[in-house]
Formats: sequence, structure tokens, C-alpha cells
Amino acid sequence: MNSIQSLVIIGSGNVATHLASAFQDAGLDILGIYSQTFKNSQILADKLNANAFESITDIPDTADAYLLAVTDSALIKIVSEMPIVNGVLMHTSGSVGLDVFPTRIIRSAVFYPLQTFTKGKSIDFSSVPILIESKNKIVLKQLENLGDKISKTVKSIDSKQRKQLHLAAVFASNFSNYMYHIAFNLLKENDLNFDLLKPLINETVEKLNSISPQEAQTGPAIRDDHKTINEHIDMLDNNPAYQHIYRLISDQIKKLKS
Amino acid sequence: MNSIQSLVIIGSGNVATHLASAFQDAGLDILGIYSQTFKNSQILADKLNANAFESITDIPDTADAYLLAVTDSALIKIVSEMPIVNGVLMHTSGSVGLDVFPTRIIRSAVFYPLQTFTKGKSIDFSSVPILIESKNKIVLKQLENLGDKISKTVKSIDSKQRKQLHLAAVFASNFSNYMYHIAFNLLKENDLNFDLLKPLINETVEKLNSISPQEAQTGPAIRDDHKTINEHIDMLDNNPAYQHIYRLISDQIKKLKS
Repeated sequence: MNSIQSLVIIGSGNVATHLASAFQDAGLDILGIYSQTFKNSQILADKLNANAFESITDIPDTADAYLLAVTDSALIKIVSEMPIVNGVLMHTSGSVGLDVFPTRIIRSAVFYPLQTFTKGKSIDFSSVPILIESKNKIVLKQLENLGDKISKTVKSIDSKQRKQLHLAAVFASNFSNYMYHIAFNLLKENDLNFDLLKPLINETVEKLNSISPQEAQTGPAIRDDHKTINEHIDMLDNNPAYQHIYRLISDQIKKLKS
Repeated sequence: MNSIQSLVIIGSGNVATHLASAFQDAGLDILGIYSQTFKNSQILADKLNANAFESITDIPDTADAYLLAVTDSALIKIVSEMPIVNGVLMHTSGSVGLDVFPTRIIRSAVFYPLQTFTKGKSIDFSSVPILIESKNKIVLKQLENLGDKISKTVKSIDSKQRKQLHLAAVFASNFSNYMYHIAFNLLKENDLNFDLLKPLINETVEKLNSISPQEAQTGPAIRDDHKTINEHIDMLDNNPAYQHIYRLISDQIKKLKS
């Protein structure tokens, strides 16, 4: 097996930027960047001291791998426009299957970093799980090797599992963040600072290192404390959407007891 | 103002246990424990090397303060049964007003630690916000002084604000934990370990140190990625409750854009 030494990055968003930097820091050779918006390619290329390609046809065919870190909707278009290359073609999406690649592409793969990336905020990549997939066993070995260079958790899973993981991540990250948003608003309305909740939020997460979320569940709903639940529902009278969410989740939490 | 030096603890649950230990560690004198179940009083009393009172009438009237750390439903009963004392009577509930104390009790107060306490898991109390309330200015000063001994964040708020804070905490802690529970179940169904999500959960919380939850919102809903949203809803076909939660929260997140 030849390990992957050189990469072309396709895309210039948060995932592309964070992964490209992690690869470069790990000693890999970034041959250049292509993005649908040339200006964005240039910004990332400048950061990495690499080339920016103006057209997709300018992409060199000599890279060991091509990282397609673009939105799910752009992915099909990019795959169809890609010049024929020998290297591994890998996308980074949690919700798109391996089948986005036509069967003529032999070295197709997925390299999915399970993390939320924020512009300008650096990440310790060693703790980011990398979920890999390929039908080609040599390619899978190459991805494992590539993943090991930037992360201590590299795991091979299939498209169905990855989609399930992505769905679970929506609940665990996007929806929990929306719960913080509601809390933020409820406090703002009463001149209270969101910082007051941070130790509680941290401890709620910290608990998961010793017990399961089900065991960790606290609050009025799990205690069947109807008096508090009804008071809370009354307090949310001016916000029917928050009230609806409160009712629905409380009803579910109550069922955990039985 | 005489600062509070001695306390009687009423209650033997998580809040009573954690607060009593924190007070003792801060050099305060725990005169004893009373709990409706004598066996539980003894367990906590043994831990603190303090007395356990068998009857509420055995409680000494010489303590500077009486911490009523019992469930909301037990609070009214305990207050009505309390012998007449000179010290400060303070409850620890987020959702109960100061008006739970009859007006004949002059030194009534609230001492609410905003944290989730787990049996057997120690807490760094210095980072736990303590929210205090009393109509008596001298008592308020005493509580501020008491709070300062165990926490670096002591803040005086009124009952309305405290109830709002408690409601916000339900969203930020209890409901976010339920989102973790859903994620846990979705992974278990597919032989995937919840640990894979922990770096993502940690980073989701870590982000809040630099940006607001609204700015931090990511995921298919905020991107208006209908294809992924519809796929996720299909994947939840065997769990109507999870599907309902997914739809409801996604619809709300979409509105953040406008």
C-alpha cells in the first residue's frame, strides 16, 4: 500500500479549511485548492501557501487523493465535473452515501470528520473522530493511515451507519444548541446573563463521562413535578413555539421513568 | 451584621449533601441534619460527623441559619412544622418563591445553587452561581457573605427572575440532556458507541465561550437543507415522537435565519 502523501482540496468552507490545515500540519503536501468561487480558493491557498486553481480542469491529476469538502448539494455537480484522476476521491459528508460517486470511479471513499467547525476557531483535531468508508480495501487502508496522521480515533463504518451518526449528531449538537438558544432568550427577556448557565451546561456534559444520558436525566419532568411543569408552561404563554417544545420534550422525559 | 457561622441542614438529598459538604469545607459549623427519613439523616450526618435529629422538634434553635434543601412539595410541610427559631430560614429551590414562608418568619430567604447535582459526584462549588433573595437587607448581606465563602458568583435576584432562570435551566440542561439521550438511542440501534459524539458535544458547548447560541447554530435546518431534513425524517419513521421533535425544532431553527 502506498500511503497518501499529496492532496488536492476541493472546497474552501469550514471543513475544507480545518482539514487542509490539519493535513498540512501533519506533513502532507497540499497541491492546491479548487473552489467554485475563485476568490475563496485564493484565501485558503494563501493561508496554506498553496496553489489556487481557477477552473476544475486545472486540477492536477498527480495527487494521491482529492478531498471533496463541499456542500451536499454541490457534491453531485463537482463529482460530474471532476477530471479523470488516479488518486482517491473522498467526500467529507455525513449525510451523503458512497453512491454519490459513479461506479467508474474505482478509488472512491468517504472521510467524515465528526465535528462542528467554526470559522476562525481552531480545533484539536487529534480528538475528532474520523469515520471512513470505501469498497476498495487498499483505499480503506490508505484512509486509515491518513486519518491516523491527524486523529486518534479513526473508524470504518458503512453509509447507513454514517447517516445514522449524522442524524444523532443533529440531536446531540444542533438541537442541544437550539435549547441553549431558547435559554439565552428567556434570560435576556429578564435581564439575566447567559453566563450564569454555563457551569450548569458544562456539568450536564461532564456527567456523560460517568453515566448515560438516561441515568443523568434530572428536572421537573423526570420527577413528575406537575406543579412546576404547569408553572413553566404558563410562563411560556407568550411563546407558543417554546411552549410546544417544552410540553413535547417533558412528555417524552416522563416516559423514561416507566 | 453577624456573619453566618453555624447551620442546620434540613434535607438529605443531592442538594443538601453537596451544599452541606461545601459549607463544612469552608469552615462553617454544621449543627446537625434533619430529614423526613431518619436513616437518610444519619447517613449524611455520619459523612459530616454531625448530629442527626430524629424529629423536627429536636432541631436546635441556636443556629445562625437553617438550610431547607428539600423537594418543592415537601417545602410547605417542613415550613409549617419548623419550630420557632431566630436564625435565617432559607430554601434552595429555583421554582419556589420567597412567599412559601409565612410573613411571621422575618428572616426568610432563598439560597439557590444553579447546578445539577449527582449522587457520589463531587462538584467544584467555586464555579456554581448562587442566587440569593431576601426582603430583609441584613439577611441579604449575610447570605452574600455565606455565598462568597463557597462560590465566586453570588448574585441577588428576585423570585420572578429566579423562576425564569430555573425555566431557562430546564431547556439548557434537562432538555439538552434529553437530546443526548435520543442521540444515544439512535447510535445504539446501529451498534455505534455514544463516545463518538463526545468531542462534538464538548465543542458545541465550548463555542459558547466565544459566540452566542444563535451565532453558533449549525446543521441542516439553519442551512435550509431540505434534502437532508427529509431524509432524517424518513429515518425516524419508526419513532414518531423523535420525528415530531425533529420537525418542531428544525422548523424553529429555520426561523433563526429570517
